[in-house]
Amino acid sequence: MTDTSTKLSEFEIISQYFVNQTPTNPAIYLGSGDDCALMKVPNDQVVAITTDTLIAGVHFPENTSPEDIGYKALAVNLSDLAAMGATPIGFTAALTLVDVDPQWLTAFSQGMMTLAKQYNIQLIGGDLTRSSIMSITITAHGFVSESQALYRHGAKPGDVIFVTGELGAAGLALRNQESYRPQPRIAAGLALRGLANSAIDVSDGLLQDLQHILVASKVGAAVNIDSLPLAAKLSQALPKAQAINLAANAGDDYELVFTVAPNKINALQQAMQNCGCKYTQIGEITPNPGLCLLDHQQQPYDLVLKGYDHFR
Amino acid sequence: MTDTSTKLSEFEIISQYFVNQTPTNPAIYLGSGDDCALMKVPNDQVVAITTDTLIAGVHFPENTSPEDIGYKALAVNLSDLAAMGATPIGFTAALTLVDVDPQWLTAFSQGMMTLAKQYNIQLIGGDLTRSSIMSITITAHGFVSESQALYRHGAKPGDVIFVTGELGAAGLALRNQESYRPQPRIAAGLALRGLANSAIDVSDGLLQDLQHILVASKVGAAVNIDSLPLAAKLSQALPKAQAINLAANAGDDYELVFTVAPNKINALQQAMQNCGCKYTQIGEITPNPGLCLLDHQQQPYDLVLKGYDHFR
Repeated sequence: MTDTSTKLSEFEIISQYFVNQTPTNPAIYLGSGDDCALMKVPNDQVVAITTDTLIAGVHFPENTSPEDIGYKALAVNLSDLAAMGATPIGFTAALTLVDVDPQWLTAFSQGMMTLAKQYNIQLIGGDLTRSSIMSITITAHGFVSESQALYRHGAKPGDVIFVTGELGAAGLALRNQESYRPQPRIAAGLALRGLANSAIDVSDGLLQDLQHILVASKVGAAVNIDSLPLAAKLSQALPKAQAINLAANAGDDYELVFTVAPNKINALQQAMQNCGCKYTQIGEITPNPGLCLLDHQQQPYDLVLKGYDHFR
Repeated sequence: MTDTSTKLSEFEIISQYFVNQTPTNPAIYLGSGDDCALMKVPNDQVVAITTDTLIAGVHFPENTSPEDIGYKALAVNLSDLAAMGATPIGFTAALTLVDVDPQWLTAFSQGMMTLAKQYNIQLIGGDLTRSSIMSITITAHGFVSESQALYRHGAKPGDVIFVTGELGAAGLALRNQESYRPQPRIAAGLALRGLANSAIDVSDGLLQDLQHILVASKVGAAVNIDSLPLAAKLSQALPKAQAINLAANAGDDYELVFTVAPNKINALQQAMQNCGCKYTQIGEITPNPGLCLLDHQQQPYDLVLKGYDHFR
């Protein structure tokens, strides 16, 4: 199959726009350019692996800037590493393009590599293909010791539930067709190792993601809906009920929701202060399954539980 | 975004058709279902990582059976592990579907898991998204010791060049719109550890892939074009020159091309016999860069070098 719209080969594109731009990580024994990359893992660590696909028009508006697309494609994967308490090491990027536009590729790569450099995560391989719809699949790898990893299944009754940062900024940006760059909570994830009993990142919406913890841990939760840390812009832009709804259900915030035993709250405060990460108490884990929403007077709060599911 | 064409959620689909069907590998400390999978790597091994995307209408005809699509998506990635001499351990599968058809999913999963079970490689994560064009991106992980891994850059002048199996069967099948299931050469890859100076798998076409070895190793090669092991069907179906052209340039055979020092040819014979893998001597590595094609009378053979490149 031949395409004459450009003179750049697949190999030249990968080399020029991606491999030459990547930071290098000392754990990568062999980077891209062979049939496989090779990664050397410290004896006391395991490899955390996650994969996520972004599709134009589904996961970001078609008119999103290439910088933001490149940034987000890596950020959503780094967020999963953060939720596991893992240190980022290397990632593969499978890129499906509609056409080859050097200006677009330069900006896309810049967005992606800005974030890669920030966390020193090396591009270790990829694939470049063509289709009529753009998509990016990244698989990210990190290191964590299995005894310190943050799991969804470790929440215990009595645990206090927290969330990092603020909620709803991503949902508002989408609504207003504004640019939004989530900051993966890598530092917070590392700080929570040995402290949090469970953790997950908010990709599909706070309540939907919290429910993954509840199901995996076979527990329930009482969440005080008035305590959600609404993004400042959100409170200004929308009536309170709508703002809360967006903060509770909109996806793409990529904050961490996590639970901590009451006797570790002081240690948590110190750890989160050290990494400069804001966090907010939003509820408590309960023995009985189910998610109970309360207002500040401890009365039931009626909020339609509706997250984001591609196939529902 | 809501879709009402099916009542199966993303989670239910992944669970029912994929996670429940995967074999388990003892190196996988945590499989799919959390933010990341966790993989435990033996002290003396490194992780080999590769990723490949297949797009409907590009990498397989639209009317390809779902079993064959599922099989091929994993096979092309296993082939890269084979070319590195790595033992398959775990893979992620990012699946972009046009719609959710239980019959299709069952068959697709069956094709993929048949191969996964054969090599005991565990599905450790994935992503399920929708688009108007189907595509599958798999990232596969294997183990190999870095001192025994098969690289592209190790070919030395005087090395004998070999290829496993037969060539051109995939190209002929594509031409005839027939089903074709390449067998990844995992056993051969393992057998070649410590024996081959270089190796690559034939995904884009024998000559194009061999040239990757030549460039990486800064050497040349003389290939005897009459010695190429043509698939039996190919010799029957086409005039000799066309058959040779297809065998030399068609992609998707997923055989291994590798080079071995002359003093290891006997050991090679024993190793390949042990794993039951046919292999054929096709040429020799030369000091001067460039690929020289000869016929059986050692005369230059004129063959247009034309591999497969999505962006050329």
